[in-house]
Amino acid sequence: MAETASTIEFFLDFSSPYAYLASQRITAVAHKHNRTVDWKPILLGAVFKVTGGQPLVNHPLKGDYSRHDMERSARRLGVPLIFPPGFPFNSIAVGRAFYWLETTNPTLAVPYAQAVYQRAFAEGGPVATTDAAAAIGAGLGLDPEALLTAIALPEWKDRLRVETDRAIGLGVFGAPTMIVDGEMFWGADRLDHLDEWLARGGW
Amino acid sequence: MAETASTIEFFLDFSSPYAYLASQRITAVAHKHNRTVDWKPILLGAVFKVTGGQPLVNHPLKGDYSRHDMERSARRLGVPLIFPPGFPFNSIAVGRAFYWLETTNPTLAVPYAQAVYQRAFAEGGPVATTDAAAAIGAGLGLDPEALLTAIALPEWKDRLRVETDRAIGLGVFGAPTMIVDGEMFWGADRLDHLDEWLARGGW
Repeated sequence: MAETASTIEFFLDFSSPYAYLASQRITAVAHKHNRTVDWKPILLGAVFKVTGGQPLVNHPLKGDYSRHDMERSARRLGVPLIFPPGFPFNSIAVGRAFYWLETTNPTLAVPYAQAVYQRAFAEGGPVATTDAAAAIGAGLGLDPEALLTAIALPEWKDRLRVETDRAIGLGVFGAPTMIVDGEMFWGADRLDHLDEWLARGGW
Repeated sequence: MAETASTIEFFLDFSSPYAYLASQRITAVAHKHNRTVDWKPILLGAVFKVTGGQPLVNHPLKGDYSRHDMERSARRLGVPLIFPPGFPFNSIAVGRAFYWLETTNPTLAVPYAQAVYQRAFAEGGPVATTDAAAAIGAGLGLDPEALLTAIALPEWKDRLRVETDRAIGLGVFGAPTMIVDGEMFWGADRLDHLDEWLARGGW
């Protein structure tokens, strides 16, 4: 279907600074090629259980470089980057809240995701707790109690798990990962290849 | 000293396809900024013993993607890419041969490194054995027996180990890694950032 064909699936973990950096550019890249973006929060922790991976910043040597490269990449893009307390943080609550919104209040889902990234990496504020997830929703006019109730429901707990399992099934092993026209691109820097891929119709 | 300040250190493993891709561009990038390139073969196997890493293509999920991305990146650059038999292969013999040449026949060292990459990833030919290392040297007019004798000497065995240990000490955890003016860039795609870094004088 045309709707499906025109979409860029954007797999992210709210705790991933590189996914945050990609989130600052992906809407513009998609718009340029008349594509939409389907935001897909997942839990990298569950992915790493399958792949044996671990959070980038925990790797010996690579972890130190990664923080440096994240900060350098952010400055290059003119985007703020602060590592919030407890980084890498638990992104379960905000992930559940995203899918609850996507189904029940769809126009607020992407703004919510953007607000989570803003709170975490632009402001260095808390996002890991359920209260933090609710506070971010309150900033968009959502009732905090409704959000807290929703993310405790099995429906939204399961949905985040299902989306994560689906991503693993597609071969997603890290974030950000973008899939468009069946072609997978991993990493914030691969947005440039994706951009070129869509401009040239592949190569 | 000006000599040191003008150099880009280029850490590579001869078995790394991404380092091969970077090798196709780094001379031009350096030339553009009036910099020289100091080629530094290392053994990623020894690096991974420190970091707990493993060859990229052996990772679950990430391995399959990486092969795909290497091939896609090569096509994008218009560079051939064939995975030679036994890939990822042992790069000890060619690494030792490189440092032997760099000291005893310096004008042939970089051409030898380029010939190794050509044999491995453009032709898909063997490079892992001492005989293969000697055959590549023969293509540059070097006496195969002299090369075989040299790479069995403790001096060149130690040199490759020392260079690898030095790289680890600098924080190198993968290949290609480029260091210029004290700034480290990891990955073939980071050549673009390095290029921009030198053009802008950092950011």
